[in-house]
Amino acid sequence: MTSEEQVSQHTPETSRSVSRDDGQTGVPLRPGSTAEAGERRKAARANRVKKGLVIVNTGNGKGKTTAALGILLRAWGRDMRVGGIQFLKHENANYGELRALQRMGVELTPMGDGFTWTSRDLDETQAKAVHGWETAKARISSGNYDIFLLDEFTYVLNYGWVDTADVIEWLRQHKPPMLHLIITGRNAPQALIDFADLVTEMREVKHPFRDQGIRAQKGIEY
Amino acid sequence: MTSEEQVSQHTPETSRSVSRDDGQTGVPLRPGSTAEAGERRKAARANRVKKGLVIVNTGNGKGKTTAALGILLRAWGRDMRVGGIQFLKHENANYGELRALQRMGVELTPMGDGFTWTSRDLDETQAKAVHGWETAKARISSGNYDIFLLDEFTYVLNYGWVDTADVIEWLRQHKPPMLHLIITGRNAPQALIDFADLVTEMREVKHPFRDQGIRAQKGIEY
Repeated sequence: MTSEEQVSQHTPETSRSVSRDDGQTGVPLRPGSTAEAGERRKAARANRVKKGLVIVNTGNGKGKTTAALGILLRAWGRDMRVGGIQFLKHENANYGELRALQRMGVELTPMGDGFTWTSRDLDETQAKAVHGWETAKARISSGNYDIFLLDEFTYVLNYGWVDTADVIEWLRQHKPPMLHLIITGRNAPQALIDFADLVTEMREVKHPFRDQGIRAQKGIEY
Repeated sequence: MTSEEQVSQHTPETSRSVSRDDGQTGVPLRPGSTAEAGERRKAARANRVKKGLVIVNTGNGKGKTTAALGILLRAWGRDMRVGGIQFLKHENANYGELRALQRMGVELTPMGDGFTWTSRDLDETQAKAVHGWETAKARISSGNYDIFLLDEFTYVLNYGWVDTADVIEWLRQHKPPMLHLIITGRNAPQALIDFADLVTEMREVKHPFRDQGIRAQKGIEY
């Protein structure tokens, strides 16, 4: 067993193939203590393939962008080549994540027009989104990245500024096989979900703005 | 309007109080274009309070820890004081996020015993978890942090290694009012959800390990 396998074996998120569970914590207390189970896991690991994943974080809850940022952070810690484009953030935005990533030498480029409701010219807003996707295509196909983030890209698709089927077809043909691509935003189109490898819905259970009138706070929300 | 308010107003996650929506994207295209709506929003903002949030990321999907890491990243970009404890990760762990945070000068301390299924002595594993919580209490109440993460802490609660009611009571009395606390892990106890300000369930929609036999990959999963 390589050290990488040892690490991945000890990660709770990857122990999913283990069926025994205490039914309460969602984590097995002592799975696979038998030799047989060990053999089964070993065979499962040998069969598993490595490939660049298409990851979609959607849903109406928090954490779609921050979970993507967490992956960028983790990958940066592994000296992987990470980058991305933020589609709705204004090109002059200076959010916490942008400050952090700049400091880390990671390029996450805001290429939006602010949000649509601040737009004085929706044609211009759409043009910026289209330009963002053109830039994304060039970067994705460049071979210069191990992980690339298209932050809030579902909005661009849902507004019809870029055609979802075209995007998927382009990715099928041009995404480097080992590149991990992360797409975030509410209401991911079904075709994108069908195309993706890993889809998580962030579901809002309790929200402080609505429930308690608490305002958005620096460092937490932006 | 301060520049902070301008920023928060342009963040899609904070536009929740705006009711108009195009029904497809989950984001309003042009909310509050009337003067009346502007006044309403202004009043809502004025009423909003700032406080340290208790944030819980739970559910069986991905992104619980990475979303917390994304918040740490964002806050670090704002020069906030961030830290945390990882409860299940082995004290000698060296995951991507730990490497990254070390490089950034952020202390995220693994204080676990690996995972329970690697434990040779569950009493020892429990003792480490209890020691982790004691350490967390000292750091949370120290006043040295703006944001603190208790990663995979729900497992410690669900195994009964630390009593949930005691934890909540302690937090009520000792958490500095402006400190944001993030707790991650599956199956968050209901009492913790009731106590928290912001709860998100990460719901697994599609998973590559199970669906395609793709293995956990460095930089993405760990």
